[in-house]
Amino acid sequence: MPPENEAPKLNAPKSRTRTSPRKPDKPRVILPDEGRARAVVDAVLPWIDGGRFAVKRVEGQAIAVTAHVFTDGHDQVSARLCWGAEGAADMHEVEMSPTGNDEWTASFTPPTQGRYRYTVAAWVDHFAAWRVELGRRVDAADILIAAQIGAVLGEETAARARGEDRKALGKWAQGLRKRALAAAKADLSQMDQVEAEIEAIKALALDDGLAEVAARYPDRQFETRFVAPQADFAAGLPLVVDRQRAAFSAWYEMFPRSAALEEGRHGSFRDVAARLPYVAQMGFDVLYLPPIHPIGRIKRKGRNNALAAEDGDVGSPWAIGADEGGHKDVLPELGTLEDFRALVAKAGELGIELALDIAFQCAPDHPYVKQHPQWFRWRPDGSVQYAENPPKKYQDIYPFNFETEDWRALWLELKSVFDYWIAQGVKIFRVDNPHTKAFPFWEWCITAIKREHPEVLFLAEAFTRPKVMHRLAKLGFSQSYTYFTWRNDKAGLTEYFTELSQGPGYDYFRPNAWPNTPDILNEQLHHAPRAVFTTRLILAATLCANYGIYGPAYELMEGRPRSPGSEEYLDSEKYQLRHWDIEQDHSLRGLIGKLNDIRRHHPALHGNRQLRFFDTGNDQLIAYAKRDDAGQAVLTVVNLDATFRQSGWVHLDAAWLGAGGVETFEVFDLLSGQRFTWRDGGNFVILDPAEMPAHILRIERSSNP
Amino acid sequence: MPPENEAPKLNAPKSRTRTSPRKPDKPRVILPDEGRARAVVDAVLPWIDGGRFAVKRVEGQAIAVTAHVFTDGHDQVSARLCWGAEGAADMHEVEMSPTGNDEWTASFTPPTQGRYRYTVAAWVDHFAAWRVELGRRVDAADILIAAQIGAVLGEETAARARGEDRKALGKWAQGLRKRALAAAKADLSQMDQVEAEIEAIKALALDDGLAEVAARYPDRQFETRFVAPQADFAAGLPLVVDRQRAAFSAWYEMFPRSAALEEGRHGSFRDVAARLPYVAQMGFDVLYLPPIHPIGRIKRKGRNNALAAEDGDVGSPWAIGADEGGHKDVLPELGTLEDFRALVAKAGELGIELALDIAFQCAPDHPYVKQHPQWFRWRPDGSVQYAENPPKKYQDIYPFNFETEDWRALWLELKSVFDYWIAQGVKIFRVDNPHTKAFPFWEWCITAIKREHPEVLFLAEAFTRPKVMHRLAKLGFSQSYTYFTWRNDKAGLTEYFTELSQGPGYDYFRPNAWPNTPDILNEQLHHAPRAVFTTRLILAATLCANYGIYGPAYELMEGRPRSPGSEEYLDSEKYQLRHWDIEQDHSLRGLIGKLNDIRRHHPALHGNRQLRFFDTGNDQLIAYAKRDDAGQAVLTVVNLDATFRQSGWVHLDAAWLGAGGVETFEVFDLLSGQRFTWRDGGNFVILDPAEMPAHILRIERSSNP
Repeated sequence: MPPENEAPKLNAPKSRTRTSPRKPDKPRVILPDEGRARAVVDAVLPWIDGGRFAVKRVEGQAIAVTAHVFTDGHDQVSARLCWGAEGAADMHEVEMSPTGNDEWTASFTPPTQGRYRYTVAAWVDHFAAWRVELGRRVDAADILIAAQIGAVLGEETAARARGEDRKALGKWAQGLRKRALAAAKADLSQMDQVEAEIEAIKALALDDGLAEVAARYPDRQFETRFVAPQADFAAGLPLVVDRQRAAFSAWYEMFPRSAALEEGRHGSFRDVAARLPYVAQMGFDVLYLPPIHPIGRIKRKGRNNALAAEDGDVGSPWAIGADEGGHKDVLPELGTLEDFRALVAKAGELGIELALDIAFQCAPDHPYVKQHPQWFRWRPDGSVQYAENPPKKYQDIYPFNFETEDWRALWLELKSVFDYWIAQGVKIFRVDNPHTKAFPFWEWCITAIKREHPEVLFLAEAFTRPKVMHRLAKLGFSQSYTYFTWRNDKAGLTEYFTELSQGPGYDYFRPNAWPNTPDILNEQLHHAPRAVFTTRLILAATLCANYGIYGPAYELMEGRPRSPGSEEYLDSEKYQLRHWDIEQDHSLRGLIGKLNDIRRHHPALHGNRQLRFFDTGNDQLIAYAKRDDAGQAVLTVVNLDATFRQSGWVHLDAAWLGAGGVETFEVFDLLSGQRFTWRDGGNFVILDPAEMPAHILRIERSSNP
Repeated sequence: MPPENEAPKLNAPKSRTRTSPRKPDKPRVILPDEGRARAVVDAVLPWIDGGRFAVKRVEGQAIAVTAHVFTDGHDQVSARLCWGAEGAADMHEVEMSPTGNDEWTASFTPPTQGRYRYTVAAWVDHFAAWRVELGRRVDAADILIAAQIGAVLGEETAARARGEDRKALGKWAQGLRKRALAAAKADLSQMDQVEAEIEAIKALALDDGLAEVAARYPDRQFETRFVAPQADFAAGLPLVVDRQRAAFSAWYEMFPRSAALEEGRHGSFRDVAARLPYVAQMGFDVLYLPPIHPIGRIKRKGRNNALAAEDGDVGSPWAIGADEGGHKDVLPELGTLEDFRALVAKAGELGIELALDIAFQCAPDHPYVKQHPQWFRWRPDGSVQYAENPPKKYQDIYPFNFETEDWRALWLELKSVFDYWIAQGVKIFRVDNPHTKAFPFWEWCITAIKREHPEVLFLAEAFTRPKVMHRLAKLGFSQSYTYFTWRNDKAGLTEYFTELSQGPGYDYFRPNAWPNTPDILNEQLHHAPRAVFTTRLILAATLCANYGIYGPAYELMEGRPRSPGSEEYLDSEKYQLRHWDIEQDHSLRGLIGKLNDIRRHHPALHGNRQLRFFDTGNDQLIAYAKRDDAGQAVLTVVNLDATFRQSGWVHLDAAWLGAGGVETFEVFDLLSGQRFTWRDGGNFVILDPAEMPAHILRIERSSNP
């Protein structure tokens, strides 16, 4: 062949021996190290952004991994799911199975919390291909040659095998070859005998027991291992396994300073401790406290967010830091660090975990401001830049400057705040406004902390734009606040929870649904009747495996906004003490206790993936079910209209609900204790807001034969 | 704080000064090199498999890139799309624009064929944030401080600027500071004057011209650059730009040996040259020839795939190699290499490119078999393993063993086959059964060839499983055969072409639709009437920007299968010479010429992305439109029933078709020359298979005002 840059010579004599490979003078092309890895592994799922971020699961939860696996031509492939703890030298392997269309699957259950990696390895399985082809062969001569090829494969397999297996494979290979060679030389006049012998050889070759032995010693010299595109992730795709509370939790938020029994007294950790049985009776497993640190005095806000505090005003717990200390200190009025530790311990005895609020911002008198002035932005007038979103100003709050040259010290100090409270026994943090701090900090901080303390969980309080909320979840937050607070109608609820359960975020974004927070009194709750509080509670508790309420405002149905249309509470605890009469008759505490009990006893409500909405023919009547891995379903029907009775036909898919194949089945209302006989298809429901505006129905496997 | 492994001391005195950052004895945590890159760039699209494979586009085609870009808090971000030729030291940059919901977009048009990279860079834009905030400020003192901050930003920007810009920014900053300081000291008793001065300062600060100058010198010290997860791809996501024929081409396949004018004579390249005007008249731009190499004599197949050839049987062109040579040689009966080169040249004069068939397999008498026995698999009986898929055997074909130890030499030699024909002027290859060769070879081979010859195109003849076809396209094939051949009904066509145009494969899988090939005479074409050949042709030519036919079998409506239900042709040219009377009156050549003319003159038909199907209310009537970037649409309506007239109401979306906003608009039938007045909504269509079973309608922008 002419060199490419040379003009072709039209009159050159035609050579007949151009087929020898010409060594180029200098290789212009670079060959891969190994070109014989013929198996293809593609589309390993789940993965997040090409392996850039970790998939999340919880302990005891199997993770199903799928991949496309195939090779060229007609050969057979084998594939294994490889997984192991991050950094471990060896990986476990699970045989994958084809599910059709070149898709393969396998699953594994990580034994403990922590970081893991997984990938898929595949190889051309010559032994399997040989067996499949031999089974289809009909020509006698072919079968005898194939038997000899099998003998070679058997010997190669024996060389990889150990002990008895090695002996068995070697013996089998030897016997196969002998018989095949003998048959090949046999007298063809005795066709009957030859045919019988060939059938016998085929049977020997296809012996299932030997194939099973051989399958234990595959030839993986040309194996293909899926490499996640992310360079750091050559060992596989990342997975974070949390403890189960990351996926299933019921939160109760309260202000310790309002926990005093006597009106007017500043509550303390001891008062909170006294309140624990009340919280436990309602069935919550996370008690979340707003910041417990010293509160700034400079620019302190007064009641109802007044610009100037009056004497005795307690200020906002989120204006952190004063002479008494900062993020690693306790507001003296709440008690001592020892009181706090005692509270943590007592809560633990009742099955309740304490969650702390971490708000990385400073009051003007926070010790950081003097000790580390370089962590803040300074204005030309010599003052520190306070938080603002012009024209709004928050002069009681100094944000950190994440672009400071001293960012390394800042990061280490902020992480040490978590470490400090972890050392006091706290394992759950609700992080205030994480989206106003630099994203790279969170990835580093959460990853570093969870490497040392995999049990620590972080809830991102980011009520902001969707992409921002998703990024925070990808960076490592264990749970995320949601838009549930503003999803009040059937269409909005259906769309949002379908997205949360079925969308790509499922693998990393764990929603936590709150009907209220100290910052958000949704308009629907303004001076709302009991039915509204009831339905929002039931929706949160049944739609979302993680949910929470801010109490006692919620159970006491506090619905007074600071001004019409405002999402701020009137007389908000953010700025003043409140006294709550938790023993009031009309409290929702009984219903809450029942709901959390229902949640605890029904695994269907412990996850979000298996969620399905059903048609009711009525925009005010929402119906949905969740299902657990065993197929047990819980169906919830809610009347969204707080004023009028609503009815409709709930159109079910009985098979999905685990009640298929029978004409009728029983449903048991976990709220009312009633039983109904329902059927596949439409079932009439009527719900009265004046009574109980919802059914929570356990689908009973039918008793009819 | 107590070290984490030490038991907390309950009685330890409470410290009030724990806030100083404690330097750990040895850092257990590793900080990133730069923690101040606060901008986030996420979800850069298009990307294929995390950047593992290249996106494909053609010359002159803009590529729109989208990304999620945002930062923490309320700051402003700026983003640029960075792109450049692979390996180039510098990248071009295009300002990106936000489109809402934190999504940003920009596009670029690569100037030439070749490999490119693109990525997105973003940074927190303090100058922009300052301007936005200043615009919202109302407090006089704030405005004066903000003006001073702006002066600092202006000076910093000036330091990055050059020439006049530098001077202008410096002067502006100086002026701003002076006035702000002066106003701050002004006599507050003259409130009116102070207010006027503050408004003037605000106006000066927000000067648009200065902002434009400043925007040219952004502060990018903490810029975030999206890094494709793939390590090799740190420079950006890969893009392959082909010439336009990769995306828009009309192929004509013919057997040179059947091109002789006289019946019975073996055709030659000269006969093909004589046939070129015929092909050109039909409007094809690619003439594809089955393998032109010497044909094996050992185990040669006879007519109609008979196991034994008879004297004079010419054999299959895909059984490559004989004494006369192999893949770099020409079958002597076809002529000389010079004849071939002359054919390439003459075709070029007529606007036709020659495409060669590359089939990497050998007849038993191919020179490779003796020269490189190690490239084949050997059986225990000393014979070479022929191709088989038991119980089927193809004893005339030896596949290469891609697991040979000598794979490097094999790869280099196979690549040199392409290089050889490229040197003869061939720039398009139709690759036979690429899915039976090792996938890593294709990625290496195509990438290496296209690095040297970006104009070379590869069509993958892989009629196989979907994942396999997609993988080949990802590995680098420029075009791919499709399932069109078997998609005969409306539902199948609609689903398949929606997937091809809208699915994720769009970015790498370029479909090429063939109603027939020498291997596939679809059952629908068996003894079919003219209307079937007409509709299949029109569907291929209008649904798919790349399409082709195997002729003259197609235009002469050859529909005889070897046996009922078989996809093989009777008297297939694969095994024998055929003589075609191309001048027959009933030939479809006229219609084909018209179709290719319509295609050429309507950019809507040059791509596949903008394809939409419309309801007709009739399963036998399919209607769909394609649209070009200028919004000009071509609407095709086809009667799929070859026997009966079919009618229905074609329900259009006039706005999508570029005819919105008017009551009626004109459509012009490019096949019949008729004009119709149509409207948004339903339009009655009746099509008679006995006449023309299709409309191809150009939507005319309406003439009414």
